[in-house]
Amino acid sequence: MRADCEALDAADPLASLRTQFSLPPDQIYLDGNSLGALPVATGARLQAVVAHEWGTELIRSWNSAGWMDLPNRIGDKIARLVGAGPGEVVVADSTSVNLYKVLSVALDTIGSSDERRTTIISDASMFPSDLYMAEGLAAARGLNLRLVDAARDLKLDATTAVVLLTPVSYRTGELLDMHAVTAAAHEAGALIVWDLAHSAGAHLVDLHGCNADYAIGCGYKYLNGGPGAPAFVWVHPRIVNARPQPLTGWLGHAAPFAFQTSYTPADGIQRYIAGTPPVLSLAALECGVDTVLAVESFGGMEALRRKSVALTTLFIEAVLYRCAGTMEVVTPMEPTRRGSQVSLRCRNGSDAYSIVQALIARGVVGDFRAPDILRFGFTPLYTRFVDVFDAVEALVNVLETRAYEALEFQTRAKVT
Amino acid sequence: MRADCEALDAADPLASLRTQFSLPPDQIYLDGNSLGALPVATGARLQAVVAHEWGTELIRSWNSAGWMDLPNRIGDKIARLVGAGPGEVVVADSTSVNLYKVLSVALDTIGSSDERRTTIISDASMFPSDLYMAEGLAAARGLNLRLVDAARDLKLDATTAVVLLTPVSYRTGELLDMHAVTAAAHEAGALIVWDLAHSAGAHLVDLHGCNADYAIGCGYKYLNGGPGAPAFVWVHPRIVNARPQPLTGWLGHAAPFAFQTSYTPADGIQRYIAGTPPVLSLAALECGVDTVLAVESFGGMEALRRKSVALTTLFIEAVLYRCAGTMEVVTPMEPTRRGSQVSLRCRNGSDAYSIVQALIARGVVGDFRAPDILRFGFTPLYTRFVDVFDAVEALVNVLETRAYEALEFQTRAKVT
Repeated sequence: MRADCEALDAADPLASLRTQFSLPPDQIYLDGNSLGALPVATGARLQAVVAHEWGTELIRSWNSAGWMDLPNRIGDKIARLVGAGPGEVVVADSTSVNLYKVLSVALDTIGSSDERRTTIISDASMFPSDLYMAEGLAAARGLNLRLVDAARDLKLDATTAVVLLTPVSYRTGELLDMHAVTAAAHEAGALIVWDLAHSAGAHLVDLHGCNADYAIGCGYKYLNGGPGAPAFVWVHPRIVNARPQPLTGWLGHAAPFAFQTSYTPADGIQRYIAGTPPVLSLAALECGVDTVLAVESFGGMEALRRKSVALTTLFIEAVLYRCAGTMEVVTPMEPTRRGSQVSLRCRNGSDAYSIVQALIARGVVGDFRAPDILRFGFTPLYTRFVDVFDAVEALVNVLETRAYEALEFQTRAKVT
Repeated sequence: MRADCEALDAADPLASLRTQFSLPPDQIYLDGNSLGALPVATGARLQAVVAHEWGTELIRSWNSAGWMDLPNRIGDKIARLVGAGPGEVVVADSTSVNLYKVLSVALDTIGSSDERRTTIISDASMFPSDLYMAEGLAAARGLNLRLVDAARDLKLDATTAVVLLTPVSYRTGELLDMHAVTAAAHEAGALIVWDLAHSAGAHLVDLHGCNADYAIGCGYKYLNGGPGAPAFVWVHPRIVNARPQPLTGWLGHAAPFAFQTSYTPADGIQRYIAGTPPVLSLAALECGVDTVLAVESFGGMEALRRKSVALTTLFIEAVLYRCAGTMEVVTPMEPTRRGSQVSLRCRNGSDAYSIVQALIARGVVGDFRAPDILRFGFTPLYTRFVDVFDAVEALVNVLETRAYEALEFQTRAKVT
């Protein structure tokens, strides 16, 4: 009943965090796992950076406004969300480019010590950009990329060089046990790279606790940094100084302003920066990260995870109760095995893309993932229990009225 | 005389272009070669992107607001400034990362056809980030990086694989003959990569006319795209499809939204995109590029170059007349051999850094480049002839009063 959901919202200790966002009043936005919503603070912050720091202070803002320090300052904030320490995370480039850096280093590290380790293990349901990067790096080194069903069988052995996985599948929402998988990779003698794109700000991540090797992640999903926000990168301190990363740009240099002609990598994660920091994007990202850090006053990431589980559980139960005949729940039913999203599939073969579009026409914004997935993200910072209720009722209406059959759509381009 | 400069401004056909910028009234800004000034249009454009496209339209803006097309749309605009064709330039990543892409491809192309070509030729006065990237790529392939004085002797021979140069030295402002150098590289059997960071929007560049192979460039200098703006990349159409570039991210895929598990590079320059486009930074960059394209109604890049030469000539002549005893002009005197900047050095060994700081304290913003260069950029879009006059008078005053000797400064961090 909707009244029950209203009661859940009234009792929600995190309810006030929603006021941090500028949300369109006529939408139920369940796509924060693709593009996080706009923080209220972002517009004014960008105006200040543009008009004052850039427009008036100009070049001196690299120092006086702390522009040069933004990758580190925001990195330190993200570190608090993923179980990393201060000085261990920087914001730089895109998720794909950061993956190239860490996977290159991981492969070179393994390759230099054991040339029989010739296989990268990943999962067919990884976001494709990760697979493309791994494919390219493997081909350049004469290695193999083997795609497994990571939640069922990792297929690790003495030929495994690096395990590249995401804790949360972008398609199914299935959540891996990072501790167990990391331990299994290490036991097999491999290094592990985690892509936290669907994890940072969404569920509990403890990079030090699980003793991971490398991690990268995205700024524009649960971190609410804005479309195409810069990404982050972490390397465990025990190995961060072992090698330079391949994109040896000037701001990863030990002394960038000495303008030396030869490269000396900076100590620590600083060496994973390449070019000049993208200040405008970084300013927006910081506002987004701050919306997640606000949870620290309300029980922290544990509380955020509790609400996320409650939202996804409610959604699954409502779909099973109201649409069991037509919709299959792809995401695991056990809360410990799912991230902050739920994926559905049509039992009757109806077109998932058209159903998503019919829902959007009713103001319920989820998204479609080829070939047949309806995907709904539940950002616990701004999603209410009544939103879950209303979204399922809209889905029931779309299915009952077969509204989707009348729809035709020109373009299918979408962004994860 | 200042009145003569006022007359030059009154007669300047490009004078009205200055109104496109929001310039601080108390400064003479001669550092647009490091960070371009703020366009008036940028603030409102960013607010519209943030509040409407992101805040209200959210994920659908990837299509409805043309976000996905920004790298190509802005790339096409930049192409008009550098003698490239439509569909040949994309905006992506940073200058350093784009250099990694094209230099990798160039080296692999040469290496696969002639393994005796083991040397990258560059110049010791290249911006260090380029040298660091070249050093790293050379080391990974067992090749050599040889630094020459490109304007005097390129030292090309049968071992030359790739020539990596910038038309305008960031330190001295010296301008190379792109046609002659490109022809020399090709005659020697090498490929050439041009870094247009100090060229695009500053002087005449004709990539097709000189039959270059690869070019990259920066968005935040003469293109006025804002601090850390994204960069651009061009590859000649005759070779762009020959190989994939190494950063094989999803938006360089032939069908990114098919979410295939295997990589197929897109046709053309599109394959040089890696991750998701940085929308906020791209929106700001487009405003900046538009300020340069505005010159198309006032005689085009030829007119902009004429004014640039007039400004740098005036500055050099005034420095020679007023400070000949103390300041040496490092930049070549022949207009055809210099970009849109002038670099000075102290004859008496005084500290260039302190002089630059003393000038800044008087509202004349140039910058310092280690170890002994005073650098002044003359962006012809917004620099007036009276600004040149006043800047030189301020320099005279600083030198005569020895104001710089009293100054102490804590930080020297600066950005090119």
